[in-house]
Amino acid sequence: MSQKEKTTIVLFSGDLDKAIAAFIIANGAAAYDHEVTIFFTFWGLNTLRKDSPVPVKKGFLENMFGKRMPRGANKLGLSRMNMAGIGPKIIKHVMKKHNALSLPQLIELAQEQGVKLVACTMTMDLLGLRKEELIDGIDYAGVAAYLGDAAEAKVNLFI
Amino acid sequence: MSQKEKTTIVLFSGDLDKAIAAFIIANGAAAYDHEVTIFFTFWGLNTLRKDSPVPVKKGFLENMFGKRMPRGANKLGLSRMNMAGIGPKIIKHVMKKHNALSLPQLIELAQEQGVKLVACTMTMDLLGLRKEELIDGIDYAGVAAYLGDAAEAKVNLFI
Amino acid sequence: MSQKEKTTIVLFSGDLDKAIAAFIIANGAAAYDHEVTIFFTFWGLNTLRKDSPVPVKKGFLENMFGKRMPRGANKLGLSRMNMAGIGPKIIKHVMKKHNALSLPQLIELAQEQGVKLVACTMTMDLLGLRKEELIDGIDYAGVAAYLGDAAEAKVNLFI
Repeated sequence: MSQKEKTTIVLFSGDLDKAIAAFIIANGAAAYDHEVTIFFTFWGLNTLRKDSPVPVKKGFLENMFGKRMPRGANKLGLSRMNMAGIGPKIIKHVMKKHNALSLPQLIELAQEQGVKLVACTMTMDLLGLRKEELIDGIDYAGVAAYLGDAAEAKVNLFI
Repeated sequence: MSQKEKTTIVLFSGDLDKAIAAFIIANGAAAYDHEVTIFFTFWGLNTLRKDSPVPVKKGFLENMFGKRMPRGANKLGLSRMNMAGIGPKIIKHVMKKHNALSLPQLIELAQEQGVKLVACTMTMDLLGLRKEELIDGIDYAGVAAYLGDAAEAKVNLFI
Repeated sequence: MSQKEKTTIVLFSGDLDKAIAAFIIANGAAAYDHEVTIFFTFWGLNTLRKDSPVPVKKGFLENMFGKRMPRGANKLGLSRMNMAGIGPKIIKHVMKKHNALSLPQLIELAQEQGVKLVACTMTMDLLGLRKEELIDGIDYAGVAAYLGDAAEAKVNLFI
């Protein structure tokens, strides 16, 4: 029976810098052969959005958040020093210069390494997000599934 | 001897969305029979405020924060998409539509399930909050009590 | 063989209130004889900056963040109620009145108690921060070192 160490991260935040931190920790833990789960809730779900609009019928209220929130990993802003969008551009530029992976590449690597990406179905409802709008290859679950993983994990972070 | 799993959450944030996340995780863990503690510190204490002003004598500085901070779970704003108070209204509306519990109901449920709600006495002093201003049925303690719980818990989150 | 309990904190945030919370938890855990590591990443690195400018040659982009970010523990703002710098002044005043340690004193105490302060080298590169600009007596490492500590710790927080 395999007894892999486990790591879970709740990604609540929709900030580029926090998402980068979450994926660097997740990929690091996966490289150490941990079983890693990232549970995306609230604004963290924006990290998983496809970058072009997906034609789904929505009510007025469902559109209130959906239309205003960033579409995908490439569009997120910084929690600080956002400077009207200049901050994220600088960070991306400097990351490239240092040969660091970009957020979309970090997400791809996570999927290749078998990191489980789980979208929180309850907050998808609250924010009016549909499965069609999120990237492929992810799971959908509620808080119970997260807690099941977290109770068996050594490292549990809320980001 | 009962050996219940333990879960602790530090609720530092005073945002509606983060408080909802904290209480959903706490109630979930309690439903799995974990012993759960939420330790409220800094702006997280606002979640526990009574919703009407309580007549207590305060100095000028003590009022600086107290008068400006939201009174209770019903008055919290969102960490994003607050849109001058429209965001919280939408979230509350949509939660109701989906038959999700409101934050005040989540707090009540937590208390019914025996989740220990602990107000951090040190930060109460810093923010000029008095016991009379907080809801009934909560505990008061310092960081030492939190650490005692956290060292025995499997899941420890800072929200 | 000593089997000390371990505690790790990722300090991602550059807010005064969150830094105070991180150091109070860290010092509390150290007082209980835990082996404590704080891993400073992104804006959390500002906590470790020396308070006067250090003459280092930097490129234009490296200066974009460096010049705009607070220099050291004394200059951090609050995550809320910052009120154009009045908030931090009040907090510092009230902490003094209650004989609570200031953030610089909390950092000193942490170093005296053997709390390991680790600056994340990768994010130092991203933000254009150099070793000469950070306080003495700290370590430098990457996410792998953090994960090594976290996997052995009972309490792991992301602040």
